[in-house]
Amino acid sequence: MSTVSNHQWRLISRPVGDLKETDFEWTSSPIPDPAEGEVLVRILYLSLDPTYRMWAATDTYLPAVPLGEVMRGITIGVVEKSRDRSIPEGAHVQGLLGWQEYAVCKPQQLTILPPLSGVPLDAHFGLFGHIGMTAYFGLLDIGQPKPGETLVVSAAAGAVGSLVGQIGKLKGCRVVGIAGSDEKCRWLIDDLGFDGAINYKKSDLHASLKEQCPDGIDIDFENVGGPILDEILTQINLRARIILCGLISGYNATTPQRGPAAFANILVRRARVEGFIVLDYHSRAMEAMTAIGQWYAEGRIKYRIDQIDGLVNAPKALTRLFTGENIGKLLVKL
Amino acid sequence: MSTVSNHQWRLISRPVGDLKETDFEWTSSPIPDPAEGEVLVRILYLSLDPTYRMWAATDTYLPAVPLGEVMRGITIGVVEKSRDRSIPEGAHVQGLLGWQEYAVCKPQQLTILPPLSGVPLDAHFGLFGHIGMTAYFGLLDIGQPKPGETLVVSAAAGAVGSLVGQIGKLKGCRVVGIAGSDEKCRWLIDDLGFDGAINYKKSDLHASLKEQCPDGIDIDFENVGGPILDEILTQINLRARIILCGLISGYNATTPQRGPAAFANILVRRARVEGFIVLDYHSRAMEAMTAIGQWYAEGRIKYRIDQIDGLVNAPKALTRLFTGENIGKLLVKL
Repeated sequence: MSTVSNHQWRLISRPVGDLKETDFEWTSSPIPDPAEGEVLVRILYLSLDPTYRMWAATDTYLPAVPLGEVMRGITIGVVEKSRDRSIPEGAHVQGLLGWQEYAVCKPQQLTILPPLSGVPLDAHFGLFGHIGMTAYFGLLDIGQPKPGETLVVSAAAGAVGSLVGQIGKLKGCRVVGIAGSDEKCRWLIDDLGFDGAINYKKSDLHASLKEQCPDGIDIDFENVGGPILDEILTQINLRARIILCGLISGYNATTPQRGPAAFANILVRRARVEGFIVLDYHSRAMEAMTAIGQWYAEGRIKYRIDQIDGLVNAPKALTRLFTGENIGKLLVKL
Repeated sequence: MSTVSNHQWRLISRPVGDLKETDFEWTSSPIPDPAEGEVLVRILYLSLDPTYRMWAATDTYLPAVPLGEVMRGITIGVVEKSRDRSIPEGAHVQGLLGWQEYAVCKPQQLTILPPLSGVPLDAHFGLFGHIGMTAYFGLLDIGQPKPGETLVVSAAAGAVGSLVGQIGKLKGCRVVGIAGSDEKCRWLIDDLGFDGAINYKKSDLHASLKEQCPDGIDIDFENVGGPILDEILTQINLRARIILCGLISGYNATTPQRGPAAFANILVRRARVEGFIVLDYHSRAMEAMTAIGQWYAEGRIKYRIDQIDGLVNAPKALTRLFTGENIGKLLVKL
């Protein structure tokens, strides 16, 4: 099953407006050999996440990917050759190994994945790893949910949003998801136990939020921004918390984005808006993994994978995140 | 010195755009008599604050003042007649007694002012009371300043801003004020000990902030919003705190105001934006008053009063807050 060469997607132009396949170039090079203290990883899964749009475009919380380089990406792989005693061959690992089939790296760049009995490997992207930590720490640390509060989640049928809503239910909140299709809304309510779900493409968001959140909004787990956040801010309660996890509605914009229309409401309602990047919680990963693993084992949370086969399809698949086509965690199986 | 009738300013129209004198009507009525359990207060000082624009226009954190009613206002007065044993005649009191010369009220509506030896009565508006609490709790509770951090204050020559900057210096911050005239900037630096001051009307705010905040901005005590906040958000550090105390630049606007242009930076820099209304800190008033009183007694903080004489001049004086004409605490002496 081994390939003779290492296929790679390289970033060749900064995206302007919508991400395009032509921003990337499909190249190949020889499979590299690990030096002393390094390992060779064969990549099995590439996670596709909205934040990649930032990484491709400009310096933000990480430097932009240099043009001509292999696109940065979160991956799961298996160690094929190890020249470091800390990582055995055959170990499953996670790391920022990029959009390629093979990578040579140092052990410090990798997290060794524990064997999850009865849990498929893709759960490290759908439930654990950066998705699980984002949902867990964003909602619990920044959102501080209390039983009886109303939690609204935008991009609720996405990997993070669907998990946030389920954790919100476990914490006793009324949970309302905002998503872009009736199918997604049905999934949120019927399978994940959300109290309500709003198809923002078909409904009057103002009226639907009023109806679904009769006691106002205490917590907003915000993945989208734009007009959705505008409307949410008009309906927040005193001391509401807005967890800024993503602003995907603006990532592909070609003009500078204005902040939310109801910004003054943050003042009037004494609300707190707090930005959040999961990288900051690396040292507390075990806390999230333990809790999520327990809930999953008890059958109290679910995840859903939206799998694309073949690295060659990665750029096209990434655009699905911005058109709202995917449900659950989008990833590429190599 | 008593007047035979009670002059009052009544709100007669909701302000549209700039506040105008014609939004108010000058009326008079007989001086009321206190019933059992009430007191009659002769008002000595009326505080003028930017938030009055909100009170006149629409329901916000307090209901809008009903049209035809005496305009709401923060006042200091002296008890002329008491029919309640908890408040003696002659006591100095503070309360929301409105834009009038006399008011009858119940003791629960009043705070009895302690005698401040060697401190003039107007210090209750310039340094203590709602101004002191706003500066103290906004900066310390929400801003959490640490020594060596850079604090930017907008509307820095106003009552709150000038105190915030001085408390920031006491806490070991580098303090940079933004104000609207060279005279104000000189006052901030020469008299109050700010490290820097920027006249936003004359300078390139971007370049001036870069120069005055070479290590970036850790805390923004925001009184203004609009283009000033836009620029500040582009220069915030990781985990910056934006204390939303006021958004005066938008209060007189006739069109809906958009949020700050660099809103996404709140996410990228993991910043926290928190709205703040001093009313919420009523129960902790003594903590602020004690600290500020101590600092004042030690000569470590100063205040400045911008006094207008005569209640009849109140509406015109209030507009000065929005044109940037006042320095320090604006009030009317009756």
